[in-house]
Amino acid sequence: MEAKKNISIVGAGLVGSMWACFMAKKGHNVNVFERRGDMRVKEVDAGKSINLALSTRGWQALKELGMEAELKKIAIPMKGRMIHQEDGTQDFQPYGKEGQAIYSISRGELNKALMNRADEDSNSVFHFDYKCEHVDFEHKTLKFSTHDGEIRTISSDYIFGADGAFSAVRYDMQRTHNFNYSQQFLEHGYKELCIPPNADGTHKLEKNALHIWPRKSFMLIALPNLDGSFTVTLFLQFKGKESFETLDEDHEIIPFFEKYFPTALQHIPDLIKDYKENPTGSLVTVKCSPWHYKHACLLGDAAHAVVPFYGQGMNAGFQDCYVLNNLLDKYKDKEWEDVFEIFSEEHAKNGQAIADLAVRNFIEMRDDTADDHFLQRKKLELNLMNTYPDLYKSQYQMVTFTTEPYYDALTKGDEQTDFAEQLLNEFPNKEDWNNSAFDKKVRNRFLVFKISDKHREYFYLFFKCINK
Amino acid sequence: MEAKKNISIVGAGLVGSMWACFMAKKGHNVNVFERRGDMRVKEVDAGKSINLALSTRGWQALKELGMEAELKKIAIPMKGRMIHQEDGTQDFQPYGKEGQAIYSISRGELNKALMNRADEDSNSVFHFDYKCEHVDFEHKTLKFSTHDGEIRTISSDYIFGADGAFSAVRYDMQRTHNFNYSQQFLEHGYKELCIPPNADGTHKLEKNALHIWPRKSFMLIALPNLDGSFTVTLFLQFKGKESFETLDEDHEIIPFFEKYFPTALQHIPDLIKDYKENPTGSLVTVKCSPWHYKHACLLGDAAHAVVPFYGQGMNAGFQDCYVLNNLLDKYKDKEWEDVFEIFSEEHAKNGQAIADLAVRNFIEMRDDTADDHFLQRKKLELNLMNTYPDLYKSQYQMVTFTTEPYYDALTKGDEQTDFAEQLLNEFPNKEDWNNSAFDKKVRNRFLVFKISDKHREYFYLFFKCINK
Repeated sequence: MEAKKNISIVGAGLVGSMWACFMAKKGHNVNVFERRGDMRVKEVDAGKSINLALSTRGWQALKELGMEAELKKIAIPMKGRMIHQEDGTQDFQPYGKEGQAIYSISRGELNKALMNRADEDSNSVFHFDYKCEHVDFEHKTLKFSTHDGEIRTISSDYIFGADGAFSAVRYDMQRTHNFNYSQQFLEHGYKELCIPPNADGTHKLEKNALHIWPRKSFMLIALPNLDGSFTVTLFLQFKGKESFETLDEDHEIIPFFEKYFPTALQHIPDLIKDYKENPTGSLVTVKCSPWHYKHACLLGDAAHAVVPFYGQGMNAGFQDCYVLNNLLDKYKDKEWEDVFEIFSEEHAKNGQAIADLAVRNFIEMRDDTADDHFLQRKKLELNLMNTYPDLYKSQYQMVTFTTEPYYDALTKGDEQTDFAEQLLNEFPNKEDWNNSAFDKKVRNRFLVFKISDKHREYFYLFFKCINK
Repeated sequence: MEAKKNISIVGAGLVGSMWACFMAKKGHNVNVFERRGDMRVKEVDAGKSINLALSTRGWQALKELGMEAELKKIAIPMKGRMIHQEDGTQDFQPYGKEGQAIYSISRGELNKALMNRADEDSNSVFHFDYKCEHVDFEHKTLKFSTHDGEIRTISSDYIFGADGAFSAVRYDMQRTHNFNYSQQFLEHGYKELCIPPNADGTHKLEKNALHIWPRKSFMLIALPNLDGSFTVTLFLQFKGKESFETLDEDHEIIPFFEKYFPTALQHIPDLIKDYKENPTGSLVTVKCSPWHYKHACLLGDAAHAVVPFYGQGMNAGFQDCYVLNNLLDKYKDKEWEDVFEIFSEEHAKNGQAIADLAVRNFIEMRDDTADDHFLQRKKLELNLMNTYPDLYKSQYQMVTFTTEPYYDALTKGDEQTDFAEQLLNEFPNKEDWNNSAFDKKVRNRFLVFKISDKHREYFYLFFKCINK
């Protein structure tokens, strides 16, 4: 039996609360320190999106904690994107094969469920209104300012920074030797609006879809909530001709929506109120490396804040917990600080990959989803996935419906996309996507692909043999 | 007459001291706050390189302050690189045309000269042992901890952060909205060693050169000092087979130098002592944008820390002072915060360009300078510069011997390098570099180049005319 360790986790958001569950389950003494109040007791304005898309990586971690069934009950499957074109037509693009979906879930309810789960374990204690002021990595102490104005210093064996994109733990880590770091803001910001339910509690738009109104340099999206409403998010540039800067007054806001989003506008009764009352958020990408320093380790947004366009921010954070938990099991005999190093060396490139993929997906969502060539390629990819389920996975599918490392999804996915483009070039007509020339081309490609991927060594040994 | 402003400058290094001169000259009340003691009174370990290469951009700013003649006296011209090959041969590569040189100068002496110059002006006051703890951008106040353990709060109209690569001012700016930032460490570190003078005070190696011992993944360089000594710097990876990690004991250090740097080793009597006593420095690149926030503005390394391989860190910082000083003159009627925005929008890309160029030059210095093809291209470029002085400038020349924006030097320089490669491909023999086919090719190229650069509009109007 491993010795009990004193664990401090900074941040009781989604990732911090999940990590508390994993650590408590292992029998350690866990203290979680949260800057805000307890969201289970009072309304807390997290200044963050109301609902999120949960997909395979997130479910994998929740399953490990035995929480899958409980949470499926409050999650709404979204089977694809519903594209609302400028001419008013709608186009449904499935995310994957039949039966695959991503799930819209309330950030608040999911967070509360994870906190409750951690609280059920007597090993873990939450402390609210604790703002992290300083980390002393040498002495493994954290300094917090608390609600009563006092400064409290906490000692621990290990420190986890799960305190989000503007992490205080990372902020102090940034001043240590050889810590590579970048933060990059998009020129776009976001604002949340609301489509309320019908009088009978049903949804005003297709419930099982993520709705997108792509308009090139900006877009609107909507995710369904359990109560029949949709949370709508406008992504728009901060500055420029049509921007948050220029859309400020009623007489500017309404015509903008009438012009670009009439099919959404009709369902948003309190547009002006929502627009003026809700804050304009900014969109930041944070990358860093390494993710650890001495006895401290970063998890989730603190290690890799990503823009929301791949719906992977939370999933990536949950996967961090799953991966690190497994590494701690695998390397039971090592010191944790050495396991943190392995974690960082193996996994940090995945955080950087999903950060890049998320920025790319913004362009895809707001721009390409309205593009004919792109739509045709998506159809071809769907055809490939259905006809050759063992051979072909699109980048989107690898990211969303597998737990393969993001870095592999990025690199392999790019190869797959190139191949789909080649096929589309050679077989532009949908009618040819099942003929024998097409089939041969696909099978040849993946023969090579599979060998280069897995069997290279055997192949090499084989040739060595026959050349003797 | 402009109203006097209260100016706070954080950092009394090279750039902070120079900016104090510029601000005091304009008649403002200047207070400079320095974390360390006064280097004019006591030995201060700045933990930085002993001598630096001063080139055209730096001289331009010093000239503006009337300090050129005074400083030329303590600067040693370096007319080119002296490459010490592995086989012991030496190869001299001129930096530019006849008469062009970069100047080795003592960091300490230059800094003292700038401080003395600022002190001569009754408008400026230096405060030592003032460590910046916090910047309140809203209230334009700075909080310092002082040597006596007190905390002092200073109010001012404008704040300048000239506090280096790990700037405290920038650190607080980093938490403001939409501040893009990155810090990236090289896998290499550096350590300073010393070649003392001959008994008669003369230099043991060619005095008017920057010496390089390029050895692919690592290198040694040496810059001359006035007292006949050379400051030698070893650039080496932190980790790996041959690295600072593995070269720790006497029996590891000596054989390494014997193997790779025998021609240097014979001149470094105190190798082991130098190696063990001098710290191993790290090499960081910092980029950020914007360079200002409200009434505060960054200058020098605080805005753009670069690795030392182009010898441009100080020169870039001095150019910041020169450029901002001119912009404040040009836009006399604007608020300074608006001038900071112009400065940042026009100039931040130059900081990013020199940061990229400096990393590239590391590869050139340690690797390419020992490469035959590279050396041949350098010779071709020198030939072009001498034969077509008005047409051809290499990237190195634009960076080092002009004051053109670094961004232009980066982009135009890449085009020039491509062209030199084309020429070398077509005219591999030195004998052909003056023949008529060569000449025609060059002149044709620069006809287009010049038009595309400056005369495009006239050309366009001309064609519009004849097409009427």
